Amino acid sequence: MTDWGNHLETMRANAPLVQNITNYVAMNVMANVLLAAGASPAMVHDEGEAGEFAAIAQALTVNIGTLSPHWLRGMEAAARVAHEAGTPWVLDPVAVGATAMRRDAGARLLALRPTVIRGNASEVLALAGADAAGKGADAADSVATAEEAARNLARRTGGVVAVTGAQDFVTDGERAWRVDNGHPLMPKITVMGCSLTGVVGAFLVGQDALRATVAALAFYGLAGERAGARADGPGSFQPAFLDALYSLTPDEVSAGAKVMPG
Amino acid sequence: MTDWGNHLETMRANAPLVQNITNYVAMNVMANVLLAAGASPAMVHDEGEAGEFAAIAQALTVNIGTLSPHWLRGMEAAARVAHEAGTPWVLDPVAVGATAMRRDAGARLLALRPTVIRGNASEVLALAGADAAGKGADAADSVATAEEAARNLARRTGGVVAVTGAQDFVTDGERAWRVDNGHPLMPKITVMGCSLTGVVGAFLVGQDALRATVAALAFYGLAGERAGARADGPGSFQPAFLDALYSLTPDEVSAGAKVMPG
Amino acid sequence: MTDWGNHLETMRANAPLVQNITNYVAMNVMANVLLAAGASPAMVHDEGEAGEFAAIAQALTVNIGTLSPHWLRGMEAAARVAHEAGTPWVLDPVAVGATAMRRDAGARLLALRPTVIRGNASEVLALAGADAAGKGADAADSVATAEEAARNLARRTGGVVAVTGAQDFVTDGERAWRVDNGHPLMPKITVMGCSLTGVVGAFLVGQDALRATVAALAFYGLAGERAGARADGPGSFQPAFLDALYSLTPDEVSAGAKVMPG
Repeated sequence: MTDWGNHLETMRANAPLVQNITNYVAMNVMANVLLAAGASPAMVHDEGEAGEFAAIAQALTVNIGTLSPHWLRGMEAAARVAHEAGTPWVLDPVAVGATAMRRDAGARLLALRPTVIRGNASEVLALAGADAAGKGADAADSVATAEEAARNLARRTGGVVAVTGAQDFVTDGERAWRVDNGHPLMPKITVMGCSLTGVVGAFLVGQDALRATVAALAFYGLAGERAGARADGPGSFQPAFLDALYSLTPDEVSAGAKVMPG
Repeated sequence: MTDWGNHLETMRANAPLVQNITNYVAMNVMANVLLAAGASPAMVHDEGEAGEFAAIAQALTVNIGTLSPHWLRGMEAAARVAHEAGTPWVLDPVAVGATAMRRDAGARLLALRPTVIRGNASEVLALAGADAAGKGADAADSVATAEEAARNLARRTGGVVAVTGAQDFVTDGERAWRVDNGHPLMPKITVMGCSLTGVVGAFLVGQDALRATVAALAFYGLAGERAGARADGPGSFQPAFLDALYSLTPDEVSAGAKVMPG
Repeated sequence: MTDWGNHLETMRANAPLVQNITNYVAMNVMANVLLAAGASPAMVHDEGEAGEFAAIAQALTVNIGTLSPHWLRGMEAAARVAHEAGTPWVLDPVAVGATAMRRDAGARLLALRPTVIRGNASEVLALAGADAAGKGADAADSVATAEEAARNLARRTGGVVAVTGAQDFVTDGERAWRVDNGHPLMPKITVMGCSLTGVVGAFLVGQDALRATVAALAFYGLAGERAGARADGPGSFQPAFLDALYSLTPDEVSAGAKVMPG
């Protein structure tokens, strides 16, 4: 049995400085999620300093949720520095198929070779150039429909692609894993996916990208299970979720991770 | 007895994609409020894509809370598309009387004929061109002082105007309703009005604007009553409020709505 | 015994309009913190209106957390108006040592003579021109290492400097106080320092800057103690903290403040 909790233990020991260029909706929750999990978040986006800061960050995450041309320049500057320095970075292509500006941003960021791409099925399909049904941040396509696109995208970028949904699918183009942790309330709360992208970034520091991503997804889903068991709805879920990220131990992750080869 | 809960049922069946160009303070809460209520929020603001996205959204809301010239261009682009396509859109004129930039923004957006204007008394007075006491996001004027201004504004724009406060007043210039739901803690929590604007937008899809607005206000106020009964203060109110938006049924809205002709 | 609760009573009686130009991560929490404490927050940042609004605000706070050149212009415009009008204003120099853009912004804002500077040890050291270890929003340096820098900075600006951490140090360059209230969970939640900056701004209105700052820190730390006693982790801490800010009485602050001369 694979010991997925080890990856949480390593992340907490690293307490990595993670730079996040993310959307306005996600910023606060993402910072709290990273702090609760055990990492050190920093939100630095302007092109005048994003690359300079990426040189000192241990991981970078980029999310195009509330995109504008100015922010895209900061994203590209930071991702370029991360790519050249070998710093792991994660792309979260929110609603990438919805508009021409998003499709262009997706292509530009893909060229900078993200270590991991984390999106829902519609986003991975759109990024891979396939037809996708989803227009907003919600996924209208099922995870299963995006598996082949995820494998192709991973081979093309040389990175890992994680398609998240009811059951997650993670692949580096050759190997693949499925993660079955989570709770039905999670899609009823905004930026749960965006915040997960930050946790994936934190797990990547000094760890194998494929396995670290799988471990991050299992940890996050387990926290969701614990919170969901205590919540009366999507409101009470949120404080319970941060408490769970904070209190979950590596042993509990190893025991509770529902991971199988894909 | 009017069955106000029907409008909630219709909204949830539609699960409409609502585009929101709102302020930085409100974004996260507004997205969570819309998800909990049963709609699908999207935050897309840049002028490079706001109009393109408005063409696929089922409703649009525009809020000038943290205004800048760049964002105003995105607001105008989206509102223009919505107006021309017949997509319902809601204007939330935060602190519109406070500065010259806000007065100008209010006039520009008014020209694009919002389906509904939702503001506090000071904002509606300022937008109507009357003297208003309020300078910040709080209302310094009472709802009663803004009723005539609301009727005039509704006639001028051909839309609905909702003045919200301890008791809400909603009019299309001819008919009017008063809504008496709510809880005293609500003004102690930021962006409760901004988030309500999103809910009004969701209710408008495929429904009569005047009645849908009244129903949205009653539903929102009822959720506040339920949350207030469980809360120890403005902090615990917030998760309880999202839980209430999520769990309130159409029957409970019909039974609890305190609506009377105005 | 000094009656620190009096300052809370005065602040609540003033219910001051506080303009905050802060980072995207902090905006919502800061507004809720100010409302719960008893003040009236407004978030107005654009250079086209920031100065105009500063003329009607009773206090101003400026935070460089998610900095960009456009926002810096708004910050300078507002701080200039505040400085010239004698309106109290607070500088929160987030991660000021991390990049060239931040160092430049810190120097520009310092020239506008903030009434109070509120930062962690690394930020105060960097702003004072000393070497600092911290790169992100977290403090890598202890409060004790920044005391001399704080005194020098206070003398140079003619204002008050508050170095916050496990134990806070507040000085006007001559006199100094230490504040020992707080809870270990507070550093595990984002923007607790940013929001405190807002509370300091609210306390400054019509009150002695040094004593008002000390009282604000004691009040805030006491609210943290109350919340921490009820919380299961950083998630449940947050609603409990807002409830505590809302419910703490001046008498409770006078009784619980752990303040000693520094």
